[in-house]
Amino acid sequence: MSLQGNALVAQSGGPTVVINASMVGCVEAARDRAEIGALYGAIHGMDGILHENLIDLFREDTEVIQGLRYTPSAALGTSRIKPTEKDLERVMQVFRAHNIRYFFYIGGNDSQLACHMISQLARQSDWEMRIIGVPKTIDNDLVITDNCPGFASAARFAASSVQFVARDAEAFGDAEVVEIMGRHAGWITGATQVGRQEERDAPHLVYLPEVKVNPDEFLEDCKAAYAQHGYLVVAVSEGFTFAEGDMFKSSDKVDEFGHARLSGVAEAIANIVEEAVGRRCRHDRLGNLHRCFSYAASAVDLEEAYAVGQAAVNRACDGETDVMITIQRKQNDPFVFECETTSLLSVADKERLVPAEWINARGNGVTEEFIEYARPLMRGTGERVPEGLPTYPRLRGRYVEKRLAAYQR
Amino acid sequence: MSLQGNALVAQSGGPTVVINASMVGCVEAARDRAEIGALYGAIHGMDGILHENLIDLFREDTEVIQGLRYTPSAALGTSRIKPTEKDLERVMQVFRAHNIRYFFYIGGNDSQLACHMISQLARQSDWEMRIIGVPKTIDNDLVITDNCPGFASAARFAASSVQFVARDAEAFGDAEVVEIMGRHAGWITGATQVGRQEERDAPHLVYLPEVKVNPDEFLEDCKAAYAQHGYLVVAVSEGFTFAEGDMFKSSDKVDEFGHARLSGVAEAIANIVEEAVGRRCRHDRLGNLHRCFSYAASAVDLEEAYAVGQAAVNRACDGETDVMITIQRKQNDPFVFECETTSLLSVADKERLVPAEWINARGNGVTEEFIEYARPLMRGTGERVPEGLPTYPRLRGRYVEKRLAAYQR
Repeated sequence: MSLQGNALVAQSGGPTVVINASMVGCVEAARDRAEIGALYGAIHGMDGILHENLIDLFREDTEVIQGLRYTPSAALGTSRIKPTEKDLERVMQVFRAHNIRYFFYIGGNDSQLACHMISQLARQSDWEMRIIGVPKTIDNDLVITDNCPGFASAARFAASSVQFVARDAEAFGDAEVVEIMGRHAGWITGATQVGRQEERDAPHLVYLPEVKVNPDEFLEDCKAAYAQHGYLVVAVSEGFTFAEGDMFKSSDKVDEFGHARLSGVAEAIANIVEEAVGRRCRHDRLGNLHRCFSYAASAVDLEEAYAVGQAAVNRACDGETDVMITIQRKQNDPFVFECETTSLLSVADKERLVPAEWINARGNGVTEEFIEYARPLMRGTGERVPEGLPTYPRLRGRYVEKRLAAYQR
Repeated sequence: MSLQGNALVAQSGGPTVVINASMVGCVEAARDRAEIGALYGAIHGMDGILHENLIDLFREDTEVIQGLRYTPSAALGTSRIKPTEKDLERVMQVFRAHNIRYFFYIGGNDSQLACHMISQLARQSDWEMRIIGVPKTIDNDLVITDNCPGFASAARFAASSVQFVARDAEAFGDAEVVEIMGRHAGWITGATQVGRQEERDAPHLVYLPEVKVNPDEFLEDCKAAYAQHGYLVVAVSEGFTFAEGDMFKSSDKVDEFGHARLSGVAEAIANIVEEAVGRRCRHDRLGNLHRCFSYAASAVDLEEAYAVGQAAVNRACDGETDVMITIQRKQNDPFVFECETTSLLSVADKERLVPAEWINARGNGVTEEFIEYARPLMRGTGERVPEGLPTYPRLRGRYVEKRLAAYQR
């Protein structure tokens, strides 16, 4: 059962406030496992694997590794590369050249698919190895797992921001549209409603991308909410779409995964609201801050992210492969969880949307069930915000010698 | 010397993280002054004065007042009204009707001008009263005072955000444009450079609205900085302008002060940078969060805002009028200050830009003198971020009976 060799960890796709905690979980667990000779980190994710840009994580200072546990964004670097067949063959060459027997890939559903393909290729080419997907996505759209590390901190940032900016809108008696990340899944957008403590609190209307919005009802609801509260805050996901309309976009660009690069939803909707309500309507787009604003980190999220990293190493050393670590909720509030596994095939390239029964009948908010699901995840750390400005360690990056000819994609 | 009567406090223009601390400073100082019979608060600033929407602040719960000291945005409500001559006459009627002998107006340079005009009108109409301007603006563009309450927290939010989002850009090897509030004065934008601890840290290029940017040098500097650091973060103010070009704007709307409502600078510049550098360039616009994101509050800012509120009441009761409270720096780091006064005329409608000698020769960053000025102001509170989501008290609002006929603007 015991498989001796080196291990590789890589970070993929959009960073999160807690993705480094998963990497640190891997490093600290791997140090204790005799099966693992060296633990390498790929610089800029898949790109680093393809070009053999690997660093030796056991040679990093302990203080740096410990500090990275609470450092936002991906310290190893990340990439948006979706590997081709040729790329996957190169990956196997790199694995053989560096005796990589363990691979931990921290990412979302695209990455879990890549993991599964590498896993199949390893099997076909008789390279015994253990491949574990480590869940990570602010979008919270991986199936089977209760939630995804990265989500709760993004949700806490968005919910906090909506509360703050709502006070500013209320002070003026303005309307306000806040644009929240989420093209297809409205988990973060829905979670902003957790911050609403009383009727007059924001957000008054919440639109998830799962709902195609009826324009007449939308205008009616905006007017009614403004009339009731004397101000109005509308939370919309970047995937906001009117029924029978196209998704708003002001850019034709696509990212490396082929996803449309959206922008400008908030402004477009704000113009519509301003006309309907007859009051100034401002807009804010929380943008990339969702992924990195660590003053708003969730304590549960940090704990989960570290735990899934550790579980990946321990499960792999104990013989599991071709699986992703999942979170199982054992107690709701305060939140208690355990790590389990599920086959990569069961999660790869699948997308978990907010279930229809967790969205209200009018399609302008989430239900109490959604709130009960999200609230316990969004607990703050209770840590002190530092007196200075944010400063975090970086990896020193002791590179592993390359063993292959240069690669051209 | 002792003038007996009621007092009125109002908040004006854009809220800040600390403007409520100034209001609380007024309330707590006024409670201790025998000269002041009642202290009223105007609901929605000038609008509340014109329409006699006044509440009795001494009837609010002590816990609410104490809680508001740390509550972002304007709890009394604010407005963007620039009073006309007719409005100012109405103001005097309201003051006479409610025996207002003390007026404290918390605002920026537009508000100081309004204060001065009211002051003149009071004198002309033989209504003895004391009028004190209380400085407030995130833009930090009031003259004579060392700095303006509201600025340091906005600066700390912007500088923190740039550090966070820079880590996200670095993880991808992306370029990034961050748009910071400031149409004419680049104080907040310049302050983001305080967060740069070492050469490779962001922001690499910083553009204040005081500088008309040479497009060739801009592109050259973006390319060079990207080549040097492997990622690029450019901080631009919303008033970013190329030499001989117009200010970017995607909106023809103007606000109630006649200021252009800008938007879209970051996106426009990001497109230019992306083409120049040949790497993806994202953009983030920090928007209204500058004014309310209290997790990033500055400790100095909270202290100053409270102190200027208290000073306004005490100076007025001691006989001063037609002045604005100023901050005088007594020690740089740690920051120690005293409150002084200056005539309203000396600050009204004037704008303090970042001095040319605090901007580097290339026009793409600030000097060490700027950093030394700003850094001590931006110290964090060291307070714990709450475990729950932000929740703040609201005023109960016990309205004062109206005594005049309704007013039509």
